[in-house]
Amino acid sequence: MTDKQSFSEKTALVANWQNLQRIFIRPETEESRAVLVKYMEQILFGLHDFLRKHVGITKEASLKKLSEQFTDSRINVNPVKKLADVIRGIIEDIAPHAVNVASPYFIGHMTSAIPFFMVHLQTIVAALNQNPVKLETSKIVSALERQVLAKIHRRIYNQNEAFYNEHIQQPDSTFGSFVEDGTLANLTALWVARNFFFKPRPGFAGVEKEGMMAACQAYGIERCVVLVSQLAHYSLRKAGGVLGIGNTNILPIEVDANNTINLDKLKSAVQAIQKNDPKTKILALVGIAGATETGTVDPLPKIAELCAEHKIHFHVDAAWGGPTLLSEKYRSLLSGIEKADSVTIDGHKQFYMPMSCGMVYFKDPHIMDVVAYHAAYINRPGSVDLGIRSLVGSRAATSLILKSALEIMGTEGYALLIDHGIETARAFAEEIQKRPLFELVTRPQLNILTYRIFPEPIRKEWDAADTQKRKALTERLNNINIIVQRLQREAGKSFVSRTTLRRAGREDTVVLRSVIMNPMTTMEIIREILDEQEHIYHSQFAIQA
Amino acid sequence: MTDKQSFSEKTALVANWQNLQRIFIRPETEESRAVLVKYMEQILFGLHDFLRKHVGITKEASLKKLSEQFTDSRINVNPVKKLADVIRGIIEDIAPHAVNVASPYFIGHMTSAIPFFMVHLQTIVAALNQNPVKLETSKIVSALERQVLAKIHRRIYNQNEAFYNEHIQQPDSTFGSFVEDGTLANLTALWVARNFFFKPRPGFAGVEKEGMMAACQAYGIERCVVLVSQLAHYSLRKAGGVLGIGNTNILPIEVDANNTINLDKLKSAVQAIQKNDPKTKILALVGIAGATETGTVDPLPKIAELCAEHKIHFHVDAAWGGPTLLSEKYRSLLSGIEKADSVTIDGHKQFYMPMSCGMVYFKDPHIMDVVAYHAAYINRPGSVDLGIRSLVGSRAATSLILKSALEIMGTEGYALLIDHGIETARAFAEEIQKRPLFELVTRPQLNILTYRIFPEPIRKEWDAADTQKRKALTERLNNINIIVQRLQREAGKSFVSRTTLRRAGREDTVVLRSVIMNPMTTMEIIREILDEQEHIYHSQFAIQA
Repeated sequence: MTDKQSFSEKTALVANWQNLQRIFIRPETEESRAVLVKYMEQILFGLHDFLRKHVGITKEASLKKLSEQFTDSRINVNPVKKLADVIRGIIEDIAPHAVNVASPYFIGHMTSAIPFFMVHLQTIVAALNQNPVKLETSKIVSALERQVLAKIHRRIYNQNEAFYNEHIQQPDSTFGSFVEDGTLANLTALWVARNFFFKPRPGFAGVEKEGMMAACQAYGIERCVVLVSQLAHYSLRKAGGVLGIGNTNILPIEVDANNTINLDKLKSAVQAIQKNDPKTKILALVGIAGATETGTVDPLPKIAELCAEHKIHFHVDAAWGGPTLLSEKYRSLLSGIEKADSVTIDGHKQFYMPMSCGMVYFKDPHIMDVVAYHAAYINRPGSVDLGIRSLVGSRAATSLILKSALEIMGTEGYALLIDHGIETARAFAEEIQKRPLFELVTRPQLNILTYRIFPEPIRKEWDAADTQKRKALTERLNNINIIVQRLQREAGKSFVSRTTLRRAGREDTVVLRSVIMNPMTTMEIIREILDEQEHIYHSQFAIQA
Repeated sequence: MTDKQSFSEKTALVANWQNLQRIFIRPETEESRAVLVKYMEQILFGLHDFLRKHVGITKEASLKKLSEQFTDSRINVNPVKKLADVIRGIIEDIAPHAVNVASPYFIGHMTSAIPFFMVHLQTIVAALNQNPVKLETSKIVSALERQVLAKIHRRIYNQNEAFYNEHIQQPDSTFGSFVEDGTLANLTALWVARNFFFKPRPGFAGVEKEGMMAACQAYGIERCVVLVSQLAHYSLRKAGGVLGIGNTNILPIEVDANNTINLDKLKSAVQAIQKNDPKTKILALVGIAGATETGTVDPLPKIAELCAEHKIHFHVDAAWGGPTLLSEKYRSLLSGIEKADSVTIDGHKQFYMPMSCGMVYFKDPHIMDVVAYHAAYINRPGSVDLGIRSLVGSRAATSLILKSALEIMGTEGYALLIDHGIETARAFAEEIQKRPLFELVTRPQLNILTYRIFPEPIRKEWDAADTQKRKALTERLNNINIIVQRLQREAGKSFVSRTTLRRAGREDTVVLRSVIMNPMTTMEIIREILDEQEHIYHSQFAIQA
């Protein structure tokens, strides 16, 4: 291939057969290889150099104006760009208006910087392009995935060596599965719980085959329910909707002052259903290990006891908190998780993997049999195809990323990140308590905290106010916090998110929410972010004493 | 950063804070950048050079032996590898035992070579690490995704310019959604169909809220069903199971001699249910545009008529065949798809994207309102967050890959690939018919065909045989085809898959199945593959005349 025929030439647009074939052929010449490598360099550093220059979450530009660039709904007939143009376009036109989730000033969501090597690992997955749905499109990667599942399973459940030796490469055993994200992991867990509950009985082939109507009739009930803390992720409601359980049957239980599920209320709810409501059955109780809004961990050992007592499926949503198990210092925060029948963990959260990787684990390596599917051309009974017990079919070999990341980081490497997040969040909370403008709303248990602007003058009014007056004051506070959060986001330097906490007997409270997972987020940066919030507040609201 | 501190040094293992931080910092020196680029070069060419040397689907090694490398279920405490070691390990130890899906001799599954630039595009997605679930972690990418959805929607539905101008960037409108794969796309389609059918009515809040039991009671029925060709992908059964419909209520309809749904039987089934079975309602009819096993396309216009007449949701599973719409020459094979209420298309199939990308499209840009979910911290009502109407939550910005690929390829570029596949499959079929050892079982409509070894001596016996005798002969033929396919796979040079076709009034027939999508798969290669099959047959079965 001469220079003239290289990828960088205008002539290399692909809509003729010769050029088209070229993009499928491994380049043989030094020149053509060099061009492809150069593109990777641009991607690695062109994008990152931009991000370095723009420390804020995104360059200012209204969404409406941005959207106007994306209104052509026709697909170009002829090629309009080459790879070089695409890369340049993304660096110049897209990246500046994307969100710089890697900024240490971006502490509003569960998305953060990822280690450099993760980009390489994702590239490997794309270059190999294996599909773990079946052995015939993945082979060794299927065996590798089984190992990764076992490694995380062992961290959660800590069964003995013999147990893992028996099941790790045994095709009939399933420790869990990789899915797109935590939503699908929670969905898978409740799918399994539902099918396990409504198992076949004489005259009934099981809920998977016959559906929920027939299942309820066969079991003589009107509905089944799942009990969760009111702080549960909305994906659990969605799972209830999808599975035909009904999302209003995902019953929210009030939380304690520390934002974990109120055990008395949970117990009462379980007892009330079991005693007084023979037409309702409890499918599962869910404990949260790292609530999305507050980072709090439910009392898992107590929920486990309750589940054991009443023979109810115990699911733990550790999408966020799961990797805390890699920290010797803080893993005890998740005590009780080993009693769960199923556990959700996200790879793209605290395993610092690229978007996206969800995982669900099951204590019993045979429980996923209740969701097994076969077909004539793959996933045949007795085969080792991983697609037999899986919500999803075709998928990327993300297990290869996690396996490699564990080798590069070790539990110690991950522990450093986890410990930094938890300890920085605690220092953050202390800093908030030192500043008179702020109120700490939820104390960080893991590495998430919420707080709000609660100015001195309003505090004084608050103390003297009756219920009616407090309602009005809360509205004022909510409004202040909404405006400050929005203005800070729009200024484009820092980002904390906001949410609304609903608490029994109190008005809905708008809070600022911070998630500390970027190791570059130092206390200096946090103080800058708080300074900026104070500055915005003072410049907008002239209600200071 | 000096050379000594670079990524390539033994000292750079990450389990101390300084090294850990380094992997999050953009490298500032030429040397450290060069190392990272070098790694990319190794990934791009180390992997591909291997694949070039091993043209077969995989190096010979029994799975059992391979699995023995993956039996350690402990996670290493300290780092054990650096990125360089990981890359070397993958090139030397993993790639040789992965499946070379990029080989032109790999024609057994819907996974093939992808253009080189796709790997770069996937790398960009990882480096930007946006999460399109919400604007705050994706911004411009959300607008871009809306555009890509509109472009494909327009290819399917071809509404007028005003329609697209109105909806393309309108937050309340949803053309479809990106999900992990076709399984989840089909699941989403039937989820929407289910909820649209069981909409709220007085005293009933809708199936999503109240569940299938309450829904059936509110509508006074016992069950709902979905009618599909018996060649439908197994994900449709799985969707029925997940959604609480029951997978035995996904009713298979027999196919014609040409492997498309038998319209008379479909009509009779619809009428029988509507007339005689008041307790059963039909949720949806499904047409297949590219059956997994045979590549055949159901008579979409006729199914559409039936749906219109009876007001039934019409879903088209075009996971495989969808991109045929980009070929001016063959798009008419999918005529009638524009009448579908919902359509599934996979990006990792005939859009040649890396694993994995599923998509589902809806004719009515408001129908997805029946699956909308909100939360307090994202997806708030009125927001532009794409996660509001989506089965999945967090996900990768795969829309960026598809958008870029369309720019690089144009419809013309994709049409070349599609046309090559269809025309090569036809030539393949002719070649089979020329060879006395083989029988063409299903004629390719798109680019998939099935055939089997049917030796002359057995043919003669067959013609003279009665039903009982034919049963025995079929068993013998099935056995021959199973063995030849396995031996060819194990020889590691070529790969065709096998499946079992079930046809009314006949025994289950084992067939060899070929999928032609790699543009490097020429007729010369196909002849080599057939030669090898003949050779294996003759060396194993001494029943030649």
